Amino acid sequence: MSDTGITVKKSEDFSEWYTQTVLKSRMADYAPVKGCMIFREHSYAIWEKIQEIFNKKIKETGHSNVYFPLFIPESFLKSEAEHFQGFVPEVAWVTQGGDSPLEEKLAIRPTSETIMYATYAKWIRSWRDLPIKLNQWCNVVRWETRATKLFLRTREFLWQEGHTAHATKEEADEEVTTILNAYTDVMENYLAVPVLAGKKTEMEKFAGALYTTAAEAMMPDGKALQMGTSHQLGQNFSKVFGIKFLDQEEKEQYAWQTSWGFSTRMIGALIMVHGDDKGLVLPPKVAPIQVVIVPIPYKGAEAEAIAAKAKELFEKLKEKGIAVVLDDRQEYTPGWKFNEWELKGVPIRIEIGPRDIKQKHVILVRRDTFKKTAVKEEEAVDAVAKLLEEIQNNLFNKAKKSLEESITTVKTYDEFKKTLENKGGFIRASWCASDKCEEKIKDETSATIRIVPFKKEKTFSKCVYCGQEAKEVVYFARSY
Amino acid sequence: MSDTGITVKKSEDFSEWYTQTVLKSRMADYAPVKGCMIFREHSYAIWEKIQEIFNKKIKETGHSNVYFPLFIPESFLKSEAEHFQGFVPEVAWVTQGGDSPLEEKLAIRPTSETIMYATYAKWIRSWRDLPIKLNQWCNVVRWETRATKLFLRTREFLWQEGHTAHATKEEADEEVTTILNAYTDVMENYLAVPVLAGKKTEMEKFAGALYTTAAEAMMPDGKALQMGTSHQLGQNFSKVFGIKFLDQEEKEQYAWQTSWGFSTRMIGALIMVHGDDKGLVLPPKVAPIQVVIVPIPYKGAEAEAIAAKAKELFEKLKEKGIAVVLDDRQEYTPGWKFNEWELKGVPIRIEIGPRDIKQKHVILVRRDTFKKTAVKEEEAVDAVAKLLEEIQNNLFNKAKKSLEESITTVKTYDEFKKTLENKGGFIRASWCASDKCEEKIKDETSATIRIVPFKKEKTFSKCVYCGQEAKEVVYFARSY
Repeated sequence: MSDTGITVKKSEDFSEWYTQTVLKSRMADYAPVKGCMIFREHSYAIWEKIQEIFNKKIKETGHSNVYFPLFIPESFLKSEAEHFQGFVPEVAWVTQGGDSPLEEKLAIRPTSETIMYATYAKWIRSWRDLPIKLNQWCNVVRWETRATKLFLRTREFLWQEGHTAHATKEEADEEVTTILNAYTDVMENYLAVPVLAGKKTEMEKFAGALYTTAAEAMMPDGKALQMGTSHQLGQNFSKVFGIKFLDQEEKEQYAWQTSWGFSTRMIGALIMVHGDDKGLVLPPKVAPIQVVIVPIPYKGAEAEAIAAKAKELFEKLKEKGIAVVLDDRQEYTPGWKFNEWELKGVPIRIEIGPRDIKQKHVILVRRDTFKKTAVKEEEAVDAVAKLLEEIQNNLFNKAKKSLEESITTVKTYDEFKKTLENKGGFIRASWCASDKCEEKIKDETSATIRIVPFKKEKTFSKCVYCGQEAKEVVYFARSY
Repeated sequence: MSDTGITVKKSEDFSEWYTQTVLKSRMADYAPVKGCMIFREHSYAIWEKIQEIFNKKIKETGHSNVYFPLFIPESFLKSEAEHFQGFVPEVAWVTQGGDSPLEEKLAIRPTSETIMYATYAKWIRSWRDLPIKLNQWCNVVRWETRATKLFLRTREFLWQEGHTAHATKEEADEEVTTILNAYTDVMENYLAVPVLAGKKTEMEKFAGALYTTAAEAMMPDGKALQMGTSHQLGQNFSKVFGIKFLDQEEKEQYAWQTSWGFSTRMIGALIMVHGDDKGLVLPPKVAPIQVVIVPIPYKGAEAEAIAAKAKELFEKLKEKGIAVVLDDRQEYTPGWKFNEWELKGVPIRIEIGPRDIKQKHVILVRRDTFKKTAVKEEEAVDAVAKLLEEIQNNLFNKAKKSLEESITTVKTYDEFKKTLENKGGFIRASWCASDKCEEKIKDETSATIRIVPFKKEKTFSKCVYCGQEAKEVVYFARSY
């Protein structure tokens, strides 16, 4: 374990705090290959939790997992022009197999629309073959040239990508919404990271989509982080790849499609939103270790009593389905262990010392507030279960409050720029709905429209940029 | 669904039977990129079951899952000479990122020893850092030039690879055995595919290992299939990558390492071993769907009674934790449905028709024997649970018998060759333990030594090839 804690404060040097927290908590490490990262056991276990939660949701709604190839022929990627333009600058290309150059170079998938839809065209003949609702968990590669940021910007990352085909636009619309809701649920009710959900603008939508919906979170440094997107692809890809079916009237139709994804960058958001100066703070529902028991050793007969009590409680918690670790390592002091488990963000620490044995109680220490409570031995299991819930709720409520406080409503471009410089966060503004204003704002401030709310909000000023009639209220921010 | 069954008999054209079974049951499909395959939902769900089973085992024995990068710099792969020689002819190379050629070309991982161990060297300092016991589930690429065989030979496949580092040789030896036993358990007690376990010869061991252990299954066409391998790497890699630690006496030592893996080719074995002329036959413990209920529709009031009864039983089985599907689709006939679910290998079909309603029973049909049994409604759930166990056992026992019958003991090279031509299977023979004889036999017959049994068997003739003194009894076979 790292022998030093984090040497900077989250509020003082956020970026350095983040890197140290990720590395020292053993969530991740830089890989010896440039631009890539290693998902260590502590973050991969969170990813496994997320997989378990989301798999349950999508399987209940009729989706299945599959696995399509890593390689995409260049010609496929080129088929949908807009899509190709969107991805080709950051594609990694395989040009050689063994000693031989390839006839056609192969892209490492940046996303799998083209390879999957070429196959859907083969599988779909009749309305009876629809809907197709498939998802895959896999690695994708986008050849980033900017500096690596663990979890947030690496050349390879892990994600899930869902790809569906439907008989009607309405069904596809509904799928887009079902998934975005599932995403929001995972983010808010498991990761405890609140989000703003809505549509993307034409400029910000997925390359090749009819429209894109997204969930956006706010990081403590005032930058937004896109947590997941769900796209209505319309018939764009089905026309390119020939995904046609005979409807119940024996008429040929093109399928309507959706695609959607979230990635391991969600783990980055989790760290940023909840972490503190001592390290990670993990929401109990996704924490690989929910409780750690640290016996406080003491000489003589008490040492045995403490060890026995610790072991007994460990077994009881385990039986209750709580992810618990008994840290009875001899080579480290209790103080050292406290630091380690705090760094790793374990929601509850249980201390059992000589006095606790005498008084027949144990000490629970919350990771989120550091509050200590003595509970009676026989009530410990229930108290832990209850406290885990409280911590989960507290983390969400705190983050929700931060998100809300991050939103600033502005009426003028001057206010807009000042807010961006001084505070960051989401900027709520009225907008004329022209690409031109959106682009100018982006060029001048690097803020983009993150979300057009699903529920249209009433405009409250002229367009924040051009001063013409405003058509929509939107949320701007700088972003990761 | 495919409207035709399998058009050849397993016993008559095994290879064609296999391809048709895989494609028509929707286990897999060829990908539009050469040499690659698509794992469709029916096979991927089996892979998920295998992951669940194996994850439980390795986590209980102190392993964690992680994820290391897809890309391996050429220099890393070259570090261990034997390892490099073993893999380089079939490496896919990335040479271009976006528009720019790369400075050093990157291998798509054929296996991850080198990239992982370069990092282990950084992580390990002291005996306190050991053991490291990590595993990853990922895709790997080996640029096959031979014809694609679904699940068995594709350029990309899915696998798990475990990589451990230990303070002593003994610990590493023990790890190798623990894992091979876990593999055998998965194969025999879940996939119902019996194996021969043992060591590989020097010629057949993993490139870079001290020794390799393996589990080998026998396919119905008389060829062996390697199901999983567990390697003692000794200090070969730790010396190359500098994985050193200070032991408890503060002396510097090189770590002892193991690596081990099994892949999606196990699913190929599963199909080959259990399938029949009607398609897949899946062992209940890994079957994504264990039971299908097919109501036999009838006009009038009975239709409703049948539907209600089917629904009721469906809910009861689900509650019991049985993976059940109620196939009440209107657009297909019962006969069509029977064929479909047989093709897909669902272990039990339940039929409910008008007569069954009257007699208050349901019909259970076993996929493995086609035997039909009428059971009382109220006993249906228990009967199903019991029958699933019976089917699991029956499949294993049948396969075990086949494996045993496939073994032929020979004393002369003439017998050896005749057996290979006429029967195939495992050939048990005495061998002088020289590479030369092993190589000659391979050149002349393409049979290799699949396994040197862990428990030394008593030699019963001179060396089957050279006629000199024999040292060991070994098992030869042609293989996939």
